[in-house]
Amino acid sequence: MASPFRTSLPRSTRQLTRQQCLRSTQCLYQRRTYATPNLRAPDASDPKLQSIDVSQLQIQKSTTPKDVMPHDQLVFGRTFTDHMLSIEWTAGDGWLAPRITPYQNLSLDPATCALHYAFEAFEGMKAYKDRNGDVRLFRPDMNMKRLNKSVSRIALPTFDGDAFIDLLKRFCKIEERFIPSARGYSLYIRPNMIGTQRTLGVGPPGSALLYVIASPVGPYYPTGFKAISLEATTYAIRAWPGGVGASKLGANYAPCIVPQMQAATRGFHQNLWLFPGVDERTGQQEDFVTEVGTMNLFACIRSPQGKPELVTAPLDGTILEGVVRDSILALARERLVPEGWTVSERPFTMRELTEASSEGRLMEVFGSGTAAVVSPVRNIGYQGKIIECGLPPDKEVGEVTLRMLDWITGIQYGDETHEWSVKV
Amino acid sequence: MASPFRTSLPRSTRQLTRQQCLRSTQCLYQRRTYATPNLRAPDASDPKLQSIDVSQLQIQKSTTPKDVMPHDQLVFGRTFTDHMLSIEWTAGDGWLAPRITPYQNLSLDPATCALHYAFEAFEGMKAYKDRNGDVRLFRPDMNMKRLNKSVSRIALPTFDGDAFIDLLKRFCKIEERFIPSARGYSLYIRPNMIGTQRTLGVGPPGSALLYVIASPVGPYYPTGFKAISLEATTYAIRAWPGGVGASKLGANYAPCIVPQMQAATRGFHQNLWLFPGVDERTGQQEDFVTEVGTMNLFACIRSPQGKPELVTAPLDGTILEGVVRDSILALARERLVPEGWTVSERPFTMRELTEASSEGRLMEVFGSGTAAVVSPVRNIGYQGKIIECGLPPDKEVGEVTLRMLDWITGIQYGDETHEWSVKV
Repeated sequence: MASPFRTSLPRSTRQLTRQQCLRSTQCLYQRRTYATPNLRAPDASDPKLQSIDVSQLQIQKSTTPKDVMPHDQLVFGRTFTDHMLSIEWTAGDGWLAPRITPYQNLSLDPATCALHYAFEAFEGMKAYKDRNGDVRLFRPDMNMKRLNKSVSRIALPTFDGDAFIDLLKRFCKIEERFIPSARGYSLYIRPNMIGTQRTLGVGPPGSALLYVIASPVGPYYPTGFKAISLEATTYAIRAWPGGVGASKLGANYAPCIVPQMQAATRGFHQNLWLFPGVDERTGQQEDFVTEVGTMNLFACIRSPQGKPELVTAPLDGTILEGVVRDSILALARERLVPEGWTVSERPFTMRELTEASSEGRLMEVFGSGTAAVVSPVRNIGYQGKIIECGLPPDKEVGEVTLRMLDWITGIQYGDETHEWSVKV
Repeated sequence: MASPFRTSLPRSTRQLTRQQCLRSTQCLYQRRTYATPNLRAPDASDPKLQSIDVSQLQIQKSTTPKDVMPHDQLVFGRTFTDHMLSIEWTAGDGWLAPRITPYQNLSLDPATCALHYAFEAFEGMKAYKDRNGDVRLFRPDMNMKRLNKSVSRIALPTFDGDAFIDLLKRFCKIEERFIPSARGYSLYIRPNMIGTQRTLGVGPPGSALLYVIASPVGPYYPTGFKAISLEATTYAIRAWPGGVGASKLGANYAPCIVPQMQAATRGFHQNLWLFPGVDERTGQQEDFVTEVGTMNLFACIRSPQGKPELVTAPLDGTILEGVVRDSILALARERLVPEGWTVSERPFTMRELTEASSEGRLMEVFGSGTAAVVSPVRNIGYQGKIIECGLPPDKEVGEVTLRMLDWITGIQYGDETHEWSVKV
């Protein structure tokens, strides 16, 4: 089976660049091509089973509306809005009528396959209130595309993403009062799909539930940036070629908690996930940088000749295909390249970061994700040493990190008119 | 962090053999030592939080007992007994009073962490009825040990295995009428632990539920053995050193379904999972054999000098630590070695299987697991070719496979008195 990257991507200039990059990646630390990004159940593309009939939406309003929490008491994902959106699927009938109901417990048979075999995939997205009071989503099409890719990797049903975005908009309108107007605040939206088959045989689920819950959230850094310390983890691996690391599956999360707790006992905020492989240019065993905690990772490195480069790991199947990651790359290509930057999706190693740091060429490092948008990194613990990432002791954030935050939140909150921001 | 295999295993002769074997494995296809088998949450061994008070057991009998299904209609894991056993855990109070209640749906908040981040681990075990009508479990201590290892790998709470076996016995007594007396029949018992924390922040669950459901099952091969065909899978990888492949986590199952469906479309019954690595003795890239579908794999290979060897992959973190696998190895060491066999837990490759097959030295191949005990393999599809595994066209099972089945079921059904069989 050929790599999908070689056959199915649009041949725009940008995609070609990524395609070339991926080709070299695949040579670099694996000798075999894995088709995982394209791996899906043989029956996953039946259009009848994918369609969602938005006109069938049933709405049952809560009769006991919750109080809106004071802003300063909001904790990520702890309190939820009044309602939830849900759609059941069966292999016989496809997606049934969507329902918005009061937020309520799910009643699940103890044999439900999601509880035994991790048939579950989710998304994280946010709704923002702009200065006119309008509610906006940020690139919801990307979340739908990724969720469809995630679920099909584990034989859960795919769905019509545009129809689901329509439903999300209806849901956001109903929950509008929970979205704080202040900058930095938003409504975190969690679409989640679970397999609901009630038998213990391991096979493709014959039924599923796609549901959405939402939690009002405050700014990730309420009192300004606070740069974090990462522990480059050499005793556990998050993802590998031919695995499922590129999909937003529950299966990728629970296994990362113990390493996270262990890093915390040594004073680090997050794990930096590595992938050990041979750099075929040098024949040396290297630790390739993949991603950090639940974020993608970017490094700003100045070449020995003085040219600045923004680099992040390529989409080779071992990292999550972050929406913010994609946005940062696009903005950097548009706005940093004219300033003389190189923007690269390419494999890079701890050796490279270590050398750049010791030679004063590591300018800044940051994580990217839906929760924080960007998260500055002060240093990385690796093999018993601390690698400083370019931040002066009196600063908590670097210039590129800060500019990215401004650009992206400007679009998210509608200050800058941009096709990525979709009015509800 | 050092490998636990180097420091913490009992130094019995058998363990030393395994230890030496593991050492060489680790050299063979990875250059780094992973501590995964010993990776657990920093607070995982608080005895107060582990203890289960069996005397607190509350029993609420079903008032609507189910009919016992006719034997010939039993399907694995589809119908369940009248009751379930459950114990809740909280980080503050540890394990609460155990309860046996009518089989019933779980009521779970839609934010429950098991549904989003795969905080879930399970066991598979069976209760058998012997010729005197007594109910027996097979090596339940092994299941408890493995479940504790699995849950601690994802920061779920560990528990007192002996106390839990006591509860399982009580449960089996209550469900005794569902256990068919006929040979080959049994009650499949499914302990499952899920994280029940109701927040979306990714962290160690502050609450959990351990529950048991049970399903009467018939013989895996009701009309006699039927040898299976395997597809050696080169486009997807089940587990990786430093990953969680040795733990019985939900996370290991959903990602394997699409490859299983794809193998089926090409006429194969199961995937044979491989691990690509470099054999450092030869410097060659090899496909190491790991396990098959949801079973461990054994091969009987005659050396060019004529000496027979029973070989299976070592416990290097990439295969499940099967109870039947362990039992087969122990029985083979006791009963086959005196007949001139070598019994090996060592890395072996598709190249080795291919060569042995083409030279007429591949005697037989079989899978091992709780469901089938042993499952004979006719052939393996690999790189477009079919590797015959030693079965003549008119036979469905090899001699060693059959002897293993007889030995193990003899113990399970109490025909042979053995410490592995525990009366309820």
